[in-house]
This record gives sequence, structure tokens and C-alpha cells, in this order.
Amino acid sequence: MPEFLQLTSPKDALQKLLTNLETRNPESEILETRLALGRVTAEDIIASHPLPEFPRSTVDGYAVYGQDTFGCSESLPGYLTLVGEVLMGKKSSILLTPGFCTLIHTGGMLPDGANAVIMLEDTQTVQSRKEVNSYSQEVEIRHAVTEGENVLQVGEDVEKGEIVIRAGTKVRPVEIGGCMALGIVKMRVAIKPMIGIISTGDEVIHPEKKPRIGQVRDINSYSLAALIDSAGGNPIIYGVVSDNLEQLKSAAKK
Amino acid sequence: MPEFLQLTSPKDALQKLLTNLETRNPESEILETRLALGRVTAEDIIASHPLPEFPRSTVDGYAVYGQDTFGCSESLPGYLTLVGEVLMGKKSSILLTPGFCTLIHTGGMLPDGANAVIMLEDTQTVQSRKEVNSYSQEVEIRHAVTEGENVLQVGEDVEKGEIVIRAGTKVRPVEIGGCMALGIVKMRVAIKPMIGIISTGDEVIHPEKKPRIGQVRDINSYSLAALIDSAGGNPIIYGVVSDNLEQLKSAAKK
Repeated sequence: MPEFLQLTSPKDALQKLLTNLETRNPESEILETRLALGRVTAEDIIASHPLPEFPRSTVDGYAVYGQDTFGCSESLPGYLTLVGEVLMGKKSSILLTPGFCTLIHTGGMLPDGANAVIMLEDTQTVQSRKEVNSYSQEVEIRHAVTEGENVLQVGEDVEKGEIVIRAGTKVRPVEIGGCMALGIVKMRVAIKPMIGIISTGDEVIHPEKKPRIGQVRDINSYSLAALIDSAGGNPIIYGVVSDNLEQLKSAAKK
Repeated sequence: MPEFLQLTSPKDALQKLLTNLETRNPESEILETRLALGRVTAEDIIASHPLPEFPRSTVDGYAVYGQDTFGCSESLPGYLTLVGEVLMGKKSSILLTPGFCTLIHTGGMLPDGANAVIMLEDTQTVQSRKEVNSYSQEVEIRHAVTEGENVLQVGEDVEKGEIVIRAGTKVRPVEIGGCMALGIVKMRVAIKPMIGIISTGDEVIHPEKKPRIGQVRDINSYSLAALIDSAGGNPIIYGVVSDNLEQLKSAAKK
């Protein structure tokens, strides 16, 4: 091996680069959450309220007082009297008392007095029993539900004051959805780092040019730019610099 | 299970959707290759010339007539007389004859008469041998190279007329680089499919609004939009439609 050939291992070269690289905290900007895909959060994002803010049903079925269903099974069903329906997006005015149930849909707010929901699949509507009330409708309960069953409690998804996204997180579609759920429609994200690209080599020409014999087109500038773009950076192509130390230095200074 | 509850399995639902979905070939547009990241090619991309277009060295070393090095080893090195250097990006005017070698750099064009390159690491420059020629410099060859060794032949990367990227390929940084190498600075890609998003539910409100009790913010529109964006589509949010068949139909028609 010739004496003038000094090789640096990839590990040493990386170390040398990192040592000499000026690191600084990136500046940040406020961005609409819906436009923040692929950006990196610049501060912790905190929930200003719990999620959900009210107890919600996780199934279609009937809101019940759970203890009413204890012991119910397909072979020995129980019966509850149906009173009304919980409308979506509204607080129900119903105050449920034992012996009654209310139709509820997935995402509906549990009415006061109810503490569980029984799935539609575990029930059967039956003809009104004349002897009780000529207008009442009864629901056959074929399964027992315990307190809290099929109910999403207040703060079960997110508690108030909880850090939902840490600073330095790359924003994916789930982060956008999560912020929207909490009404966080703007967020502080790091400004995309600008990364300059210099291609070097006397034989390297712009891809639009036709290479003369011995020349090759500049591939790396555009591959690297696309990689930087994918990684959330802002690539700037400075073009091809010939194999000349002074020209290289001047391009690098830019 | 109540008699009125008709469930469709996910598999059947998807089948039903795909059967009723109008499929058509997406329209296409011509785009600059450097801007085509994440897009999908609309036609095969074909190499109009081979790559490389000239035989190139894959190492730093000396271009040689391979047969000159046969039998050379560290313990029994051979000697070749150095004539000049292949400059990058130029065709060398040197016609190499047996017994001589030429300095060549990685990517440099093999001079006529040479058919192999010996790596710098396998050589040693030696003092000029006065008895031969007071000005000539000799290179010690400590390894044998066969014809074609350390040389990238014409068309070895890509042959002329070869399909380099098939229609329907998602463009990654490597595809961009590959096209640049061939001087393909524009390509035909499919126009991003526009995908409308409708959120439904009487309880669903715009994320900027403060939910009243029982209401929830629209999460899905924005999560789906970000997912469509990531997948190369063009999402259009049509907002929240209440649980009303007529309103849903009218929104879907848009």
C-alpha cells in the first residue's frame, strides 16, 4: 500500500463530521395541525381537558343500571322497560331509574342513573306486556353487564394536563387526529432544516446536459434531495463544483 | 340478537364497495423528475442509451493491460512504467501498450489499450530506474488483475432500450437518481387521485369548535386526509354531514 494513502474509517469520518458540526436548536414556527404531517413538534402538547369529557357508550344497545342485569342469561333473561332514546350529540334529559333502560348509540352520552350499556346483540325487543302498561315496551336482557361495561369513562382516553405528544415527535396521521380530538388545531413545530447539497467532480455534469465521453450526469444531488425531502428536511441544490479546493471552499461557505 | 340487525362482515363490505366502485385509469401528467417523489409512473421508462456509456474504473489505481500483471504477487512483484494520468471527465489521448500503466481515478474512463485496473493499494511507486530511462517512473505491481477487473463495462448498469422503471411504480429517491443518470429529467406520472372525505354523525363538530356536552370533534376527516396525503393522494375534506340520508346522498354526489 502506498505510503501517501491515508484512509479514514467510516466510523472515524462520521465522528470527525459530528465533532465539527455546529449543532443548534432549530427555530420553530406555529403551524395548523392539519398541515403538520411529517414535521417535528417543538414543544410538549398538553391536553387542556379530559377525553372523553362525558361518559360515552362504546356500543349500540341500551343504557342500563348494571345491577338490574345481574343473573340474566339466554336461558333466564330479565326484562327492562324501555324509556326513550339518547340522541347523538345531546345530553339526555332522561334520569334512569332501576327497572328501566334507554336506547343508546355508539358514542352517545350515558344518561344520569345509568352505569353500563348492554349490547343490542344481547337483547331482544318484546311485545308490550298489557298487564303492566299498554304503551310500554319491554327489552329482554339475555346477558349480565357490570358497572362501567361498554362505557368509556371521563378521561379514559386522555386525562386533563396529560402530555399527549412530546416535543421532538415526528407528526404522523395519528398525531393529527389526536390533536383534533382535543381541539388543538395549531401546534409549534421545528422549522425544516435547510440542507445544502454540493456535488463534486470534474466529470460530473447537470442531468439535462448530454455527457461527452468520460462525463457522467449528477445523480447524487437529486437522490439526496429526495431523501432529505422524505426525512422532513428542506434540500437546496448548489450544483456541481469541480475538483478545485478553492471553489469547493467558496461553495461550502454559501 | 334482534331480528332487525343485519350485519355485514368486513370482507363482504369490502367486496360490496369494490364491486360498486367505478374504476378508471387515472389521468397522467408530465412532471419534472426531481419533483416526482411519491408519485406513480404512468408509463414504462426506457433507457435511451447504455449506462455507463464508456468503460469506467471502479477504483483509484492504475489502468493496465491485465496480462502484464499475471503472476504478480507481494513476494514476486512486477514492474510497469507509468505514463501520465487519466483526467476526470475526459477521454484520455493515451494509447496504452503492454509494459506501461496510467494513473486512473474512480469513475475515470479506461484509456484505449487498457483492459483492467489495479487498485492503488496493490501497488507501490518506486524510484525511477536509472538504467532504463532517467525520467521514467515505475510502479510495483503486487497483485494480478484479470481482463475486466475493477472496470465497469459499457451497459453494465443499464443496457440501451432496457425498461428501467415499470409503469405503476411509486417514485422513491433511488428512482429519481436512476432517471437523472440517464438524463430523464421529466417523466409521465399519474395525477394524484382526489379523494373526498365525509364525516357523519349528529354529534360530530368541527375541531375548532368547543364541544357542548355530548358532542365530539371531527378526528377522522383529518387523520384520513393525512393518511391519503402520505399514500400519494389528494384529500378533500367535505366536512361533517348529519345523520340524515338525504343530506348524506347530496354530499356523496359532490
